[in-house]
Amino acid sequence: MQRKIILDADPGHDDAIAILLAANSPEIDLLGITTVAGNQTLEKTTLNARRVCSVAGIKVPIARGMDRPMVRRQIIAANIHGDSGLDGPAFGDPTVDVIGMHAVNFIIETLRKSEGDITLVPTGPLTNIAMALQLAPDIREKVQEIIFMGGAYGFGNTTPGAEFNIYADPEAAKVVLHSGIPLTMVGLDLTHQATATPDVLEKIKAIDTPLANTVVELLEFFSKTYYEVFGFPAPPVHDPCTIAKIIDPGVFTTKHVYVDVDTKSELNYGRTVCDFYGVLDKRPNCHVAIDLDKDRFWQLVIKAVERYKPAV
Amino acid sequence: MQRKIILDADPGHDDAIAILLAANSPEIDLLGITTVAGNQTLEKTTLNARRVCSVAGIKVPIARGMDRPMVRRQIIAANIHGDSGLDGPAFGDPTVDVIGMHAVNFIIETLRKSEGDITLVPTGPLTNIAMALQLAPDIREKVQEIIFMGGAYGFGNTTPGAEFNIYADPEAAKVVLHSGIPLTMVGLDLTHQATATPDVLEKIKAIDTPLANTVVELLEFFSKTYYEVFGFPAPPVHDPCTIAKIIDPGVFTTKHVYVDVDTKSELNYGRTVCDFYGVLDKRPNCHVAIDLDKDRFWQLVIKAVERYKPAV
Amino acid sequence: MQRKIILDADPGHDDAIAILLAANSPEIDLLGITTVAGNQTLEKTTLNARRVCSVAGIKVPIARGMDRPMVRRQIIAANIHGDSGLDGPAFGDPTVDVIGMHAVNFIIETLRKSEGDITLVPTGPLTNIAMALQLAPDIREKVQEIIFMGGAYGFGNTTPGAEFNIYADPEAAKVVLHSGIPLTMVGLDLTHQATATPDVLEKIKAIDTPLANTVVELLEFFSKTYYEVFGFPAPPVHDPCTIAKIIDPGVFTTKHVYVDVDTKSELNYGRTVCDFYGVLDKRPNCHVAIDLDKDRFWQLVIKAVERYKPAV
Amino acid sequence: MQRKIILDADPGHDDAIAILLAANSPEIDLLGITTVAGNQTLEKTTLNARRVCSVAGIKVPIARGMDRPMVRRQIIAANIHGDSGLDGPAFGDPTVDVIGMHAVNFIIETLRKSEGDITLVPTGPLTNIAMALQLAPDIREKVQEIIFMGGAYGFGNTTPGAEFNIYADPEAAKVVLHSGIPLTMVGLDLTHQATATPDVLEKIKAIDTPLANTVVELLEFFSKTYYEVFGFPAPPVHDPCTIAKIIDPGVFTTKHVYVDVDTKSELNYGRTVCDFYGVLDKRPNCHVAIDLDKDRFWQLVIKAVERYKPAV
Repeated sequence: MQRKIILDADPGHDDAIAILLAANSPEIDLLGITTVAGNQTLEKTTLNARRVCSVAGIKVPIARGMDRPMVRRQIIAANIHGDSGLDGPAFGDPTVDVIGMHAVNFIIETLRKSEGDITLVPTGPLTNIAMALQLAPDIREKVQEIIFMGGAYGFGNTTPGAEFNIYADPEAAKVVLHSGIPLTMVGLDLTHQATATPDVLEKIKAIDTPLANTVVELLEFFSKTYYEVFGFPAPPVHDPCTIAKIIDPGVFTTKHVYVDVDTKSELNYGRTVCDFYGVLDKRPNCHVAIDLDKDRFWQLVIKAVERYKPAV
Repeated sequence: MQRKIILDADPGHDDAIAILLAANSPEIDLLGITTVAGNQTLEKTTLNARRVCSVAGIKVPIARGMDRPMVRRQIIAANIHGDSGLDGPAFGDPTVDVIGMHAVNFIIETLRKSEGDITLVPTGPLTNIAMALQLAPDIREKVQEIIFMGGAYGFGNTTPGAEFNIYADPEAAKVVLHSGIPLTMVGLDLTHQATATPDVLEKIKAIDTPLANTVVELLEFFSKTYYEVFGFPAPPVHDPCTIAKIIDPGVFTTKHVYVDVDTKSELNYGRTVCDFYGVLDKRPNCHVAIDLDKDRFWQLVIKAVERYKPAV
Repeated sequence: MQRKIILDADPGHDDAIAILLAANSPEIDLLGITTVAGNQTLEKTTLNARRVCSVAGIKVPIARGMDRPMVRRQIIAANIHGDSGLDGPAFGDPTVDVIGMHAVNFIIETLRKSEGDITLVPTGPLTNIAMALQLAPDIREKVQEIIFMGGAYGFGNTTPGAEFNIYADPEAAKVVLHSGIPLTMVGLDLTHQATATPDVLEKIKAIDTPLANTVVELLEFFSKTYYEVFGFPAPPVHDPCTIAKIIDPGVFTTKHVYVDVDTKSELNYGRTVCDFYGVLDKRPNCHVAIDLDKDRFWQLVIKAVERYKPAV
Repeated sequence: MQRKIILDADPGHDDAIAILLAANSPEIDLLGITTVAGNQTLEKTTLNARRVCSVAGIKVPIARGMDRPMVRRQIIAANIHGDSGLDGPAFGDPTVDVIGMHAVNFIIETLRKSEGDITLVPTGPLTNIAMALQLAPDIREKVQEIIFMGGAYGFGNTTPGAEFNIYADPEAAKVVLHSGIPLTMVGLDLTHQATATPDVLEKIKAIDTPLANTVVELLEFFSKTYYEVFGFPAPPVHDPCTIAKIIDPGVFTTKHVYVDVDTKSELNYGRTVCDFYGVLDKRPNCHVAIDLDKDRFWQLVIKAVERYKPAV
C-alpha cells in the first residue's frame, strides 16, 4: 500500500532531491508540495519547487505557504544554497505553476478530506505545519505522523546548538513537538551520515540522463559550499532521509524520547533538547533518528533518479 | 464620517460593554465581531458574544476564531469572569449565530476588500490578529490602525509584571508590536482609571431598561470578583476604553514610545516594556494610553446604553 | 541609641551626600565606608570616597571593594556622574587613605565581631554585600537589616525596566533578595521624589560654608546631567534616602511584599519584580519604599550639612 | 619538572581517585586540596577529603571552601554518590584536619606567593575558583592554566544538556570561561570513555593493598549507582582524567574552540556551548577534551595506587 504524504519544503538542494525521491518512488503517493521560506525567501523556494517539478515532469499540486516565521525575525541560508536557493544547474523557465490556495489551507483541507492516512513530511522550517495545526486544531487527529528534517542532539549547524530548520522557526517547532501527533525527528546526527561521497556521485553520473546530470550539478554545488563553510569533505544530503524512512523503515534506527525546543535562551535558541537518559521524567513524544544505513539510503535515491526517463 | 472597525473580543464582562458601546455609537461602523479564547475558552467567549448581541439586538457578523494561543499553553481568567466567562445576569438562548468563516479568514478577507480604512480593536489576547497578519502579510497595508486593550507599564494583573491579555499570548503581541501598523496600547495604567464606581452604577440603573439592568448585573458581578481578587473598591472596566478612544479621541492622553514584549523571561514573561525615557534609542511604535477623562468615558458608555430601546 | 551602619557606596554625587548625612547625624554610628565599582570604576569611586571624607573631615575606615560585578560584564554611569564619577566641584588631593583590608573582608570581620546590631546600607551595586554573604554565610545572622538604594517597580533609568544599581549586578541582587535578611528597597519610585529643586538649593547655598558650597556644586552638576539625559527639571538625590530612613523612620512609607530580580531576560535583565498584588503567593521578603515626605527628607540633609563646621 | 597544582574537589568517588592520583604521581606537586559543595554538602565533601587523605597518608593542606553556589540554589548528587558522598568503603575517623583558612583565601594567597606556575584543577562546581578570581582579579595572571572536569558538548547527565558540575554553578563557570586564563574542559564526552570496566577492577584488586581494596569498593559502589541511574554497564571515572592530562599530556586529544555557558535558559541552564564549527566567530578560549587513550589513563591510575604502600 502506498503511503500518502504532503511534502513541505524550502528548496534548497537537498529538498530538491527529496522531491525527486518522493515523486518517483512506488511506495509513496505524493499528494502535494507546499513551500515555505527557509533556505531562501518564499519567492525563491517556491520558484525552485516549480523548477524541480518542471525539469522532472512531476505533476502534483504546489501550494505557496508562509513567507516568514510565526514569531521570530526571518533568517535564510544563502551561504549554503546560494543566491537562488538552488544554485548550480541552469534551469529554464518553469512549466508548472502553483495552485491558488495558500499552503496552510491546502494542508488543512487535504487533511480534513482524508481518512487519517496522510503523513506530513516537512523538510524546511515548521511554519506551515504549525500554522495549520493552530488554525485548525481538528486536523491533528487526521495526521498519521510527521517525519521532519530538523534539529540535532549533537552540534547544530547554524549556532553551536541549533540546526537551521529549527533555528529558523523555533516557535513553530514548539507547536509541532507538543502537538501529540506521532513524530520522527531526522536531525543532523542522522543526516550528517548521508554524505554524497565521490562514489555516490559517480553512480549518479553513470545514469547519464538529463535529470541525473542536474542532480550531479546540485550535489557538486552543495559539496563546494559545505566544504567552504564547514570543512566537510562531502556534503550531507539531509532532506531525502525523511522520504527514505517512509519507503524503507529500516533505513535508519530511532530512539523514542522526550524532545523539546528552547525558545527562550539566547545561546541555545532553537536547540532541540533530547532527553536520551530520561532525566526529565517526561513522556516520550518523538522518535529521534540515530544510525543510517548509508548504502541502503543512496540506493533508494539512485533508483529514484534512474526511474526518471529522459524527456524525448 | 463613521470609523469602520472589527472588534476582536473574548467576552468577558468588560468586552460585553465594549460590544454594546461599539454597536450603538453613531461614530462607529461595526463590521463584525471576532471571538478568541482568553477570559474563557473559545466555546464560552463565542457563546457570550452571541448572548450579548442577542440581548441587545445587535446584527453584525460574528466569527469564531482561535481556540488557543499561537505558541504558549492556554490560560483563562475564570477567577475574574466566572465559569461562563460572563457570570452574573441570566441570559436566554442566543438568537444570533456565528458565520461559517474562521475569524482569522474573516479579518483577512474583510481587510482585503477594504480601502485601508478599517481599525482593528482587539480586547482579548492578540492571537487572531497576529495569525491573520502572519498568514496574509499583504493585509498590513490595509489596517488603518490597531487599538488594543492589553499590557501595562506599571503593575500587571496576572503576574507582577504582566497584564492578562498579553500574558495569555505574548508571542502574538510580539507580532503585532513589530508589525509596523500604527498602534495604540490601552493598558492597565489607563483602564484602572475607568472604574465602575457606585455613582456610575446609579446612573446606569436609572436608565431602567432591560439592557441597562443587564449591564448593572454584569458590573455588580465584576465588582465582586475584583474586590475579592485584588481588593479594588470598584472594578476597572478595561475594554470599552478602546472604543471610547475611537468615538472621542480626547477621552485619554497617550505618549508615543517604543514598546516591546518579553517572550523570553520566566519572571517577566508577557510584560510590555515601554521605553518612556528613550534609553533604548528605538523608533517609537506605539501610542501608550496614560490619563483618562473618566467622566467623559462614562458618559459615552451611558449614552450608548440609553440608545438601546427596550424590546417591545 | 545610635544605629550602627556600614555604608557601601560607589560615589557618585548622591552617594557623596549620603556619606555626609551618615557621618554627621547623631542618630548614626558610621562604622566604615566600603567602596564598590558602579557609577564609575572602583579606582574612581574609591578616590571619590576619600575626597568626600577629606573635604568633610570624616574619619572612618574606608575599605576598597569589588572592582567588577559577580558574574556579568561591568557597566558604569559616566553619562550621569561624569568622567571622575564626581564631576562638578574641584577637589584637592585626599588626605585620608583606604585601609589595607578588602571591603568584603571588612564587612565580614566587622559583622563577626558585632552583636547583631549592624545595618548594611548599600547605595551602589550589591556586589560587596553579596560576595560577603556567600563567602561567609554565618554573617547573615549578624546583619540587623539591609537598606539598599536600587530597583524600581515603575520605570527603570538604565533600561525601561531596570534601575542602574541592580542592572549593574543583578546576580548580586538575587543573592541579597533571597538572603532571608530583613530588607528595605529604596527604589526610583521613592528617590524620584527626592528632587533637589531650586528652593532646596537655595537653602543649602544659604549655609555658606565651604562644604555647603561643595554640595551645591555637586547638585548643580547633577541637575545638568539629569536634565540632559532624562529631561528632569530637578535631579533626584537617590542615595541619602536610605540614610534618612535610619535617622527618621517616618520619612517614607513602605509596603512589605515579595521582591525578586530578573537575571534571565534580555529585555528585563535587572528588573526588580515587586508583587504588590500578591499574585505569586510568595512570602514577602522586602519593604518597598513608596511615599517620601520630601520636606522632612531635605531638612535632615540640610541639618547635616549645617553641622559641618568650616575648617579653620 | 613537577607541575604545581591545587586540586579543588567535592569528593565524591571519582574525586577521591583524583586525589590519590595527584598526591602520588612524581610528575605532580600537590600544593593543597580545597573543598567545595557539589556531589554532597560542603560538610560531607570536606570530611571525605579528610578521609581519603587519612586512609592514604596524604599530607597536604586541606582548605574548606564555598558551601553554596555563587548565585543559584544549591543542588547535590546524592543519587550517584550516596548519602555520605563517598558511600561504599567503611572509613574510620579521619586523622588529618582542615587548615583554618577559607579555600578561596588559600587559593588567592597561594597564587599571590607563586611565580605563575600553578595549575588549578577543579573537579567539582567552579565556585571556589570563580569567587577567588572575582575577589582578587590580580591572581588571574598568576594562574598557569585551569584544567576542569565539567561540561559536555554531547548529552548532559543532570539535564539533557547540562553536566552536573557546571549545572551546579553555571554562574561560576561563566566567570571562569571568560577569565582569559588558559583552559582545558574535561567534559562528559571525554570522561564517559574512562569507564571502570571489569578488567580494570581486576587489575586494581590484584594490587591487594588496603588502599587498593578501598578503591575497588569505591568503584563498585559507583558501578551500582551508574547502572541504576543511567543504565551504564561500567561507571565513568570523570575527575582523575584532569590529573592524568597533567601527568601525561598525550592521554587525551583536545580541540581549541570558543566555549560559553548558558546561564539564562530554563531548558539549557548550565549547558556548555562549544562552537566546534566556529559559527559564532569568537576567539577560542578553551581546549575541549575529545578522545581518551583509555589504556594509558588506567595505567596511570593503577601505578599511582600501587605506589601507596600498605601502612605497617
